[in-house]
Amino acid sequence: MNMNDQIGAAQLMVELGERSYPIWIGSGLISRIGRAFQLQHIPTGSPILVITDDKVGPKYLHQVAEALEYVGYSVSTHQVPSGEKSKSLRVFEDCISAALEAGCDRKSTVVALGGGVVGDLAGFVAATYMRGVRFVQVPTTILAHDSSVGGKVAVNHPLAKNIIGAFHQPDMVLYDTSTLQSLPDRDVRSGLAEMIKHGLIWDQSFAAWCEEHAEQLLAKDEEALTYGLLQGCAIKAAVVSQDERENDLRAILNLGHTIGHALEAVAGYGELLHGEAIAIGMIGSARLAEQMGMAAGVAEYTERLMKSFGLPTAIPAHYDTEQIIAAMMHDKKFNEGRTMFVLPTAIGRVEIRRDVPVEQVRDIIEELKGAGTWQ
Amino acid sequence: MNMNDQIGAAQLMVELGERSYPIWIGSGLISRIGRAFQLQHIPTGSPILVITDDKVGPKYLHQVAEALEYVGYSVSTHQVPSGEKSKSLRVFEDCISAALEAGCDRKSTVVALGGGVVGDLAGFVAATYMRGVRFVQVPTTILAHDSSVGGKVAVNHPLAKNIIGAFHQPDMVLYDTSTLQSLPDRDVRSGLAEMIKHGLIWDQSFAAWCEEHAEQLLAKDEEALTYGLLQGCAIKAAVVSQDERENDLRAILNLGHTIGHALEAVAGYGELLHGEAIAIGMIGSARLAEQMGMAAGVAEYTERLMKSFGLPTAIPAHYDTEQIIAAMMHDKKFNEGRTMFVLPTAIGRVEIRRDVPVEQVRDIIEELKGAGTWQ
Ligand SMILES: NC(=O)c1ccc[n+]([C@@H]2O[C@H](COP(=O)([O-])OP(=O)(O)OC[C@H]3O[C@@H](n4cnc5c(N)ncnc54)[C@H](O)[C@@H]3O)[C@@H](O)[C@H]2O)c1
Ligand SMILES: NC(=O)c1ccc[n+]([C@@H]2O[C@H](COP(=O)([O-])OP(=O)(O)OC[C@H]3O[C@@H](n4cnc5c(N)ncnc54)[C@H](O)[C@@H]3O)[C@@H](O)[C@H]2O)c1
Ligand SMILES: [Zn+2]
Ligand SMILES: [Zn+2]
Repeated sequence: MNMNDQIGAAQLMVELGERSYPIWIGSGLISRIGRAFQLQHIPTGSPILVITDDKVGPKYLHQVAEALEYVGYSVSTHQVPSGEKSKSLRVFEDCISAALEAGCDRKSTVVALGGGVVGDLAGFVAATYMRGVRFVQVPTTILAHDSSVGGKVAVNHPLAKNIIGAFHQPDMVLYDTSTLQSLPDRDVRSGLAEMIKHGLIWDQSFAAWCEEHAEQLLAKDEEALTYGLLQGCAIKAAVVSQDERENDLRAILNLGHTIGHALEAVAGYGELLHGEAIAIGMIGSARLAEQMGMAAGVAEYTERLMKSFGLPTAIPAHYDTEQIIAAMMHDKKFNEGRTMFVLPTAIGRVEIRRDVPVEQVRDIIEELKGAGTWQ
Repeated sequence: MNMNDQIGAAQLMVELGERSYPIWIGSGLISRIGRAFQLQHIPTGSPILVITDDKVGPKYLHQVAEALEYVGYSVSTHQVPSGEKSKSLRVFEDCISAALEAGCDRKSTVVALGGGVVGDLAGFVAATYMRGVRFVQVPTTILAHDSSVGGKVAVNHPLAKNIIGAFHQPDMVLYDTSTLQSLPDRDVRSGLAEMIKHGLIWDQSFAAWCEEHAEQLLAKDEEALTYGLLQGCAIKAAVVSQDERENDLRAILNLGHTIGHALEAVAGYGELLHGEAIAIGMIGSARLAEQMGMAAGVAEYTERLMKSFGLPTAIPAHYDTEQIIAAMMHDKKFNEGRTMFVLPTAIGRVEIRRDVPVEQVRDIIEELKGAGTWQ
């Protein structure tokens, strides 16, 4: 982590050999996106396509397009409906049409301006348009600190989340913390769940820092956010650098996601926010770990942490347990007849297990439906 | 090229570092697919999904599935309508649904049983399902000797061919020449166009061999076919090994494709077969090269070769010239305002040019509409 003087922002490099790229984090960065493009040697001869959603677009698209045009880029834009439902093949096809209509070619760049939904969708467009073009992320949610590192891009299938996708690293990430001021509170909390996750899997002191700064983070204090986002990105980058394609280590990033993804699928995409689902999932994992004798005290700690961030700690009682179990079996983490769980052994330490008996998972789900808060 | 005794077939390795893979070519190979899977260490614990079309499926699917099940694989199948129209996002989505319903996981293998259409479609499924699973090609057309080497997979958009895709190398290619006996004559000719192309771009003596063996090849003589397919695959493999992602050299494989793809788009996918379109395109390129003073005699030679294989040598007169020109600008070969042409300098030698004036292209298209044969 250091400062980039030409951009005037904190800079973190994601080290991936020839696919390494910078993440810049700072206030007011989108007005400097033109300069950032030049620093990354993005050619001006081919059209740029900015993909955004209909909540973010009206606020920031004009500024981004103008800053790019100012330094000589020709910019087209495409706006999709806000929300998880836009991570579909239908909306993906519309984006490809927009790229064609804009005259995008193999040297074009796709820019994702928005949260994780726009990032995953536009990233899949960049990964597949003409078999892959340049990709730049301009995240506008807290959650997107997670989705903008690691190169996983995808859309959903009605039966399973993120099932259609690719690995496609961005050329750079430009994180303008001032855009976060307009983020709705529920999305703030959802995004902070992934930030906390990075502490829980890797760095006990960062988890403690999150707990101590819950109030500032929830109030979107820019200094606290900048530190938390840098820390979260740095942890994810460290993991991904060691295992870009998720052969082993990278799987630890899935803490809370085995149960979380299943809950999202059962809820119907969009009802339960991603961060909310994994908050519940992280509590579930901690309880499983304790029941299996792998850890002590982690469940209580995890639950307290989630509560201090106003995140849900229970599964809505009307969700069907068997449907949740079935959804786990359509997940990418399920293979050769077993599903994978990331279980904590202590705060800041996790283990990957493929031997959790399904009966135990069922019990934990029932338990999570019984108690806790659900807004 | 050598023999693999365990499979009893000619073997060619496509050298791509850790993504290297074998191509086996021989008569009756699909009955040995189980053994081939074992040799490639494809795990039995995860379901195999065989994708085929409704002309190939009824003939060969049963045999393939049985041979795999015999050695312990669990096999699901999915049949799509035959023809270029199946290279669409709609049909792609159906394939993903089939994979989910079959319970395919990250260790599953997608098998393409069919021609280039099934290969490109199933390949894109393998490239994107859970961000990439194993892929095996079982080509049943002559044209597929081209599409099974190089890892290019894609589907079409109504506005442009192969515009949505990826690079995804197969784990192996199993080419059973006996399946070619049921291939309709028109598809035989279309496939031979790509075989000839490999001679024209790389190896004058192979082009001459093709001309001498036109009769045997058209009559589907297995010995001639095996030699021609091996030679064609070997040339393509040599090119691709040096430039997997088409940064420069690989572009020479597009001889005839700038005009050819535009013709396919204007015709409406399916009306003009791919090999037919590029046959016309190769003649167009040769004429362009002569007009630009780069070569002499190549146009006449190319036209004669196409005629001896019963391939079309003219553009159907009712095609609109301006539409053809417009289609070229939606092609992947078009960027930064110019389109790319592969032009012959002699038989077996080509050059990549980005400076062909559009007026000259227009003239050649008009000329090609005037004369020659169109079945
Ligand atoms: N690729 C990865 O590695 C990865 C990792 C984690 C999550 N994800 C994906 O990310 C998605 C969730 O991301 P998200 O929570 O950012 O969702 P999102 O993109 O839907 O954004 C949340 C909501 O906030 C709105 N919004 C965004 N920025 C705003 C701003 N600055 N001001 C006002 N409103 C704003 C959006 O329109 C949306 O309604 C999920 O689909 C998840 O699967 C991907
Ligand atoms: N990926 C690449 O590098 C690459 C290279 C060249 C071509 N292609 C693509 O390949 C496609 C054309 O391939 P194709 O010509 O094989 O088309 P195809 O797959 O449509 O096959 C042609 C026809 O023959 C039928 N058929 C196939 N095998 C048969 C058999 N053994 N017996 C009887 N009928 C059979 C099919 O059902 C179809 O009707 C195009 O979409 C083209 O873009 C891709
Ligand atoms: Zn997540
Ligand atoms: Zn071709």
